[in-house]
Amino acid sequence: MLKVSILSIGDEILIGQILNSNSKWLAEKITQIGCSIAKINTIGDSSNEIISELNILLPISDIIVITGGLGPTHDDITKDVLCNYFNDKLIENNTWTKKLIDQFNQRGMDLSERNKTQAFIPSRSTLLWNDFGTAPGMLFNENGKLIFSLPGVPQEMVNIMENVGFQKIIDLLNSSNTESIIYKNIQTNNIPESSLADLIDIKEDFLGNSSLAFLPSYRGVKLRIGAYGESKSQAEKELSRIENYLIPRIDNYIISFDERPFAQIISEKLIIKNKTLAIAESCTAGLLSATLTDIPGSSKYFKGSIVAYSNDIKNKLLNINNEQLEKYGAVSKEIAEEMSNNIRKIFNSDYGISITGIAGPSGGTKEKPVGTVWISISSADITFSKLLNFRGSRDMIRERTVQSTMVEFIKFLK
Amino acid sequence: MLKVSILSIGDEILIGQILNSNSKWLAEKITQIGCSIAKINTIGDSSNEIISELNILLPISDIIVITGGLGPTHDDITKDVLCNYFNDKLIENNTWTKKLIDQFNQRGMDLSERNKTQAFIPSRSTLLWNDFGTAPGMLFNENGKLIFSLPGVPQEMVNIMENVGFQKIIDLLNSSNTESIIYKNIQTNNIPESSLADLIDIKEDFLGNSSLAFLPSYRGVKLRIGAYGESKSQAEKELSRIENYLIPRIDNYIISFDERPFAQIISEKLIIKNKTLAIAESCTAGLLSATLTDIPGSSKYFKGSIVAYSNDIKNKLLNINNEQLEKYGAVSKEIAEEMSNNIRKIFNSDYGISITGIAGPSGGTKEKPVGTVWISISSADITFSKLLNFRGSRDMIRERTVQSTMVEFIKFLK
Repeated sequence: MLKVSILSIGDEILIGQILNSNSKWLAEKITQIGCSIAKINTIGDSSNEIISELNILLPISDIIVITGGLGPTHDDITKDVLCNYFNDKLIENNTWTKKLIDQFNQRGMDLSERNKTQAFIPSRSTLLWNDFGTAPGMLFNENGKLIFSLPGVPQEMVNIMENVGFQKIIDLLNSSNTESIIYKNIQTNNIPESSLADLIDIKEDFLGNSSLAFLPSYRGVKLRIGAYGESKSQAEKELSRIENYLIPRIDNYIISFDERPFAQIISEKLIIKNKTLAIAESCTAGLLSATLTDIPGSSKYFKGSIVAYSNDIKNKLLNINNEQLEKYGAVSKEIAEEMSNNIRKIFNSDYGISITGIAGPSGGTKEKPVGTVWISISSADITFSKLLNFRGSRDMIRERTVQSTMVEFIKFLK
Repeated sequence: MLKVSILSIGDEILIGQILNSNSKWLAEKITQIGCSIAKINTIGDSSNEIISELNILLPISDIIVITGGLGPTHDDITKDVLCNYFNDKLIENNTWTKKLIDQFNQRGMDLSERNKTQAFIPSRSTLLWNDFGTAPGMLFNENGKLIFSLPGVPQEMVNIMENVGFQKIIDLLNSSNTESIIYKNIQTNNIPESSLADLIDIKEDFLGNSSLAFLPSYRGVKLRIGAYGESKSQAEKELSRIENYLIPRIDNYIISFDERPFAQIISEKLIIKNKTLAIAESCTAGLLSATLTDIPGSSKYFKGSIVAYSNDIKNKLLNINNEQLEKYGAVSKEIAEEMSNNIRKIFNSDYGISITGIAGPSGGTKEKPVGTVWISISSADITFSKLLNFRGSRDMIRERTVQSTMVEFIKFLK
């Protein structure tokens, strides 16, 4: 296995000002490629700490991915420390200087001396192109070990890794011919863990050195395959073998592969069908709409939504009969179904989705406790509705409602 | 300074399956108490790795906070490894056994052998009460150094630290009479970094060993005070001294202290004023509504919203004149102002907020590139509007629009 360590440099992570989402993203992607993560460490912007950490990580790692400390200000020291550590010297990269000059000129500014230093990189390192920032990434190759130095801004780090970084890791993996584990996730829904296990019915020696984990969550049970091989290509073959066995057995329950967001799946389905959607939200107050429109191009199918908190507004804007609201209560099958049908008509869309529930912390009753949510999905022909029951905080109830509604909509579109 | 290291143990963090929110939370809280964080490290559930990490961290730390690996299953090994590392032996804690028995009985179950082992802790460690789980926390005191071992479940870890953990750290801090730095954040807005620096006009020797950082973001410039003292109480005095100097000078630009979310500030202001709000969103498609209703009790002031993507719907649901849409375009001062006034009237609310813009990646023109956003806020008497220009991804443009709109609304409510 190629061992990868991830090192975040930055006082703002160390003092808890920001969440280290870079490390999670890197760990997940690098694991999926088939490497193993040795350590994920965070240290401050200090020369001594960077050096002592390199001394710890280099002997136990084939690859080190460093993020942070590449900005133009005086506390950004990563580049200089690495340059000294590898006994190298900084030289100007003319392509990058030109890029910086162009970029500043476009904004009607001259390239400042401070920013000009960002075009200087250690002579033996490879410049990694950064589409979004003034600091390029750098790649050191020291005795066959790869050391990446990347900006800490998530968008820039992701850009560099997706453009060129992961390919460098894959190349090393392919050439090193070392053992490898490739992970793959299969998201299922609407089937309990035990029934899924019965359905899959794996014989004792089927997995060998590979693994299969069952990870239940409110999205449904996720299966994580860890396919082992003595090389990357062996691991890929092993993954195919396991998938070919698994997938036909559980096809009806598969929602997605590899954590593709539900909003993305919905987007693709609606575009293929050339259908449109409108939403009426109560307790989630726009969260489903915001989640579905996270996808570029969503204006093709998303017509809009109405957030109606009070009965008053449900009546006035969603044309819900006051007597019905009185009779069934706002959180009911009847009102949910009327909401999904009415919103469809108001927006003249093909599908209507509605959510009405109690997110808490107040507003619950004995019959309808906090976490009671009715959702409905309608087309001109079919009206579907479902009662959801969640526990947890307001946040969790709203988030789970949105996820579950998307799952139901994906099934509705099948 | 007391040096604290944070060590997360768990394969699920190492493979990037979950975000390490525990470490961020601990780092932030411990920094606020006045300790400094030496390292934040993550390793897998492996005995060798835990031992080698303890060997690295113990010499450089006064306190180590370990999370994870305390569950009842075979891959939870933290307790046994620590017990061996400190040459201790496990003994039963009868109070905990009784708690477990009671807890299982309440669910109509007997205490399993597997769970019973959770009541055994190293003889020289102190049990730290956990209100929410079956694994207690443990505190080791080795030659004056504190080593916490806590469950990885965030709710349980937080519970233990808030009940007893932080107090143990504060006690050590007070008794050790060591130097201390206390951090405090002040969020400003509507003033550039350089003007803020001019306004504050700090004389060379004013800060001494303390620090003042300017942290610009799309929320505005955040000031981070690091107040240094030779003891915790000295640092507190120093913080007061700096605050007393700073705050009167920049009062007009202060939005909040200590990272209180903007939605929380808005909530408090609207409740005090007893006023209501409705929102018309275009490119943000419900994200502002969802963000504002994240706050429990938001139904007191939030009446609802309409998400109108197309001109068609803007006309039909927001009563925007088609000729005006034609004349000015949907992303314009005129349409934004009409949207904020109309939504206020439709929902019969005291305030109306509107957002209309181009989140991209497509839909931009030369005159109105991606990232062009008009927002408007209206009351019966005043109509305010503002042009925002953002760069970046669709996500970033939507998120920044929502944050900036909340800032403008806070100012509008002043």
